[in-house]
Amino acid sequence: MRRNRIGKNKLRGIRSVRQDEAQGVGTIFADFVAGTTWTDVARQNHEAKRSILNFFATALGSAHDPAVGVALRVLSPFSGAATSAIIGRSERLDAMGAAFVNAISANLLDFDDTHLDTIIHPAAPVAAPVLALAQARGLSGRDVLIAFILGVEVECRVGNAVSPGHYARGWHITSTCGVFGAAAACAKLLGLPAVQISNAIGIAASQSAGIVENLPSAAKNVSVGNAARNGLFAALLAAEGYSASPRAIEGPLGWARAMGDEPDLERLTDSLGKTWEIAKNTYKPYPAGIVFHAVIDACFKLREKLDRRIDDIAFITVRGSALLLARGDRPVCNERDARVSIHHCAACALLLGAAGITEFSDAIVFRPEIAALRQKVKAELDASLPDGAARVAIQMASGEMLSEVVMEAKGSLADPLSDRDIEAKMRDCARLGQSDWDIDRIIDDVWRLDTLADVSSLMRAHG
Amino acid sequence: MRRNRIGKNKLRGIRSVRQDEAQGVGTIFADFVAGTTWTDVARQNHEAKRSILNFFATALGSAHDPAVGVALRVLSPFSGAATSAIIGRSERLDAMGAAFVNAISANLLDFDDTHLDTIIHPAAPVAAPVLALAQARGLSGRDVLIAFILGVEVECRVGNAVSPGHYARGWHITSTCGVFGAAAACAKLLGLPAVQISNAIGIAASQSAGIVENLPSAAKNVSVGNAARNGLFAALLAAEGYSASPRAIEGPLGWARAMGDEPDLERLTDSLGKTWEIAKNTYKPYPAGIVFHAVIDACFKLREKLDRRIDDIAFITVRGSALLLARGDRPVCNERDARVSIHHCAACALLLGAAGITEFSDAIVFRPEIAALRQKVKAELDASLPDGAARVAIQMASGEMLSEVVMEAKGSLADPLSDRDIEAKMRDCARLGQSDWDIDRIIDDVWRLDTLADVSSLMRAHG
Repeated sequence: MRRNRIGKNKLRGIRSVRQDEAQGVGTIFADFVAGTTWTDVARQNHEAKRSILNFFATALGSAHDPAVGVALRVLSPFSGAATSAIIGRSERLDAMGAAFVNAISANLLDFDDTHLDTIIHPAAPVAAPVLALAQARGLSGRDVLIAFILGVEVECRVGNAVSPGHYARGWHITSTCGVFGAAAACAKLLGLPAVQISNAIGIAASQSAGIVENLPSAAKNVSVGNAARNGLFAALLAAEGYSASPRAIEGPLGWARAMGDEPDLERLTDSLGKTWEIAKNTYKPYPAGIVFHAVIDACFKLREKLDRRIDDIAFITVRGSALLLARGDRPVCNERDARVSIHHCAACALLLGAAGITEFSDAIVFRPEIAALRQKVKAELDASLPDGAARVAIQMASGEMLSEVVMEAKGSLADPLSDRDIEAKMRDCARLGQSDWDIDRIIDDVWRLDTLADVSSLMRAHG
Repeated sequence: MRRNRIGKNKLRGIRSVRQDEAQGVGTIFADFVAGTTWTDVARQNHEAKRSILNFFATALGSAHDPAVGVALRVLSPFSGAATSAIIGRSERLDAMGAAFVNAISANLLDFDDTHLDTIIHPAAPVAAPVLALAQARGLSGRDVLIAFILGVEVECRVGNAVSPGHYARGWHITSTCGVFGAAAACAKLLGLPAVQISNAIGIAASQSAGIVENLPSAAKNVSVGNAARNGLFAALLAAEGYSASPRAIEGPLGWARAMGDEPDLERLTDSLGKTWEIAKNTYKPYPAGIVFHAVIDACFKLREKLDRRIDDIAFITVRGSALLLARGDRPVCNERDARVSIHHCAACALLLGAAGITEFSDAIVFRPEIAALRQKVKAELDASLPDGAARVAIQMASGEMLSEVVMEAKGSLADPLSDRDIEAKMRDCARLGQSDWDIDRIIDDVWRLDTLADVSSLMRAHG
């Protein structure tokens, strides 16, 4: 792998922004990405491995999902030499095709990692192209980790600068910001000099797409997959000399303004290299929308108080922020609805004491006792609660009232999943995905990723 | 080619919009696209051929441009079976790769066709994937013409609905709307039923991208190429069952709102099947931004009045709308600048009496007399003039003042290029592109496109 070490220059690059407002954000990011070495990111190494482990968990969980099968079938006749694995399967595609398909499968279960400040799911669009490219070129685990950490950094900083208006306007932020992260990561992995990294990031701005209106449909997969594929494409084009505006993100006719955003330039570049967005990554314990996790946790606590008196429940009131109601107060007709339903989350947690992959399957969604309990749930606004919190009250037929409030759900930064929790999630997902890949080996390889000389050994069914 | 003829149902589909507001624009477009037959479009046939001839002209003109070479080099290792020609060259790629590269080359010279209401360049993103796919599958010229006409219809109607705010906000409208046209056209070419055409259009909404900030750079090529490639991709995914929201364009969290636009729903679907956007297509006589064409025409008239007294010019004042000034009042450092320079356009037209491909080459851009004459040009706002008009006044050293105004430039709908003009443009472009493709044969084949049983015969160097 060729490298272009700018070293201490990156600090000069960053400082000069304030002195010289003519320097574009693309240039600042590029100097930072080009100049960052293993030493700079070593302390982020463990969180990056946790993210990548969660990425494999979710990709393995959907390895045989029909949407993955369709993407593979469509792309196979359009693949060059098949260098890169489709995670959890025996097929391969070229690195751009594999990046597309693996990003889809990592995102399909809505069980991703989550950067809570933006609700970006960072790993799918970044890890997918990084691993596909690294496998194609026989690069090391350390190369992968550096590129992944930097990609997540760029992706989430772009998201920070336009949140929360961006998502609210209809942009699927994982897709729209993911392509920047994928471009930066792949450009780093290719060892490009700063000017070409800036071009890759600028080319990403001309490929940023994906709308919330399409989220309940397979079209969501296309924007997530494209973010991964097109970030890699941007880096490959930049490596061959394609250019872009260094102000593609923040310029007067650039990405942020076109997208309807007034970017917060401070949040784009402030403390670059000192704080790390990967450190703010979280992992879902439940395959439901993250705003429902506090509902589930509150219902787990209430289940202990209930002591099996389910039939005596008169009704259940779930209170939370406007976001909770906007996302989750809806009828449930299928698995996808269930994963974004206040009613279903509460019913499963109370009746079954569980909210894993099984509890969001059709078998449970259509179970009469669950459907009946969903009917007893109503959602109400409590504007005093922050996003991500929930208060659940149960009115018993006897007149007794039980209540629990959860401010920080399991899986949040305040109550993170342990490494063992993520391993257990991995095993759960792998069971669901019916993959024959050796899970123990993947877990071992990810934990020692910084010592792998060639990540190709990770990207196959057996060691 | 499989077909799904909805026939008279399309009218029912269109009427029902007003009665039943629940029907999405995607569904309306899809019913229209699925139900349109050759008889419905036969009267648009000749204008479609003119567009396609102009498309070949511009693609041949840039066949050996370095930007085309880079795209080919980057995509070659990522191509499946090479079914589809790169226009003007000997290489082939798979249909998605060829769609990307041919859209780039058709757009590189800024010598495209232009739909003046939106400033969309309709052919590049639509003709490129249609021809690449038709060649791969051995489809007929008539299939190509129907698909192309329908693709341009959807592309330009989406553009109409969001113009002029969309471009002004920073969206490169040829890229952002082109993907809808490409998707609709390829879905028609694949013979998909209406529900899948609607899905293809919805998937396009999640791939719509491209920013004006990147226009002076190679990143522009990426969004134009992606519009072509991703429209085809959307159709292929829809054919295999991928779905999208039927309200992906106009829904509350859909494309138009996310893009910052309030779509004019009337303009999306009004008189669908009765009026045709292809009939409003125009072809540039000069390879400069279209707003400069009136400047050139005015200077041609002034050149006759001047009668070679170029050295006696004191200064030249070009007056036009705010758009003219915003686009063209800039220093000239290279060919790309020259094609969007008021100063260069005026200087060439006055001194050389020409504004063809040669006049925008570096050899002329750096010629001392041209550079000196550019210095004498100043641009001034005349808010009373519409976009596309120009008033040019020459102050002679003697005190004499010469003046001309052009309200409708050559190439506009009021003064269109003749078929022979487009053929001549084709020959000019081909000379520039140094292609060995047989130009006479391409011209013949395009004029008789509706009789070609297999367009593969058109997509090669020699008949």
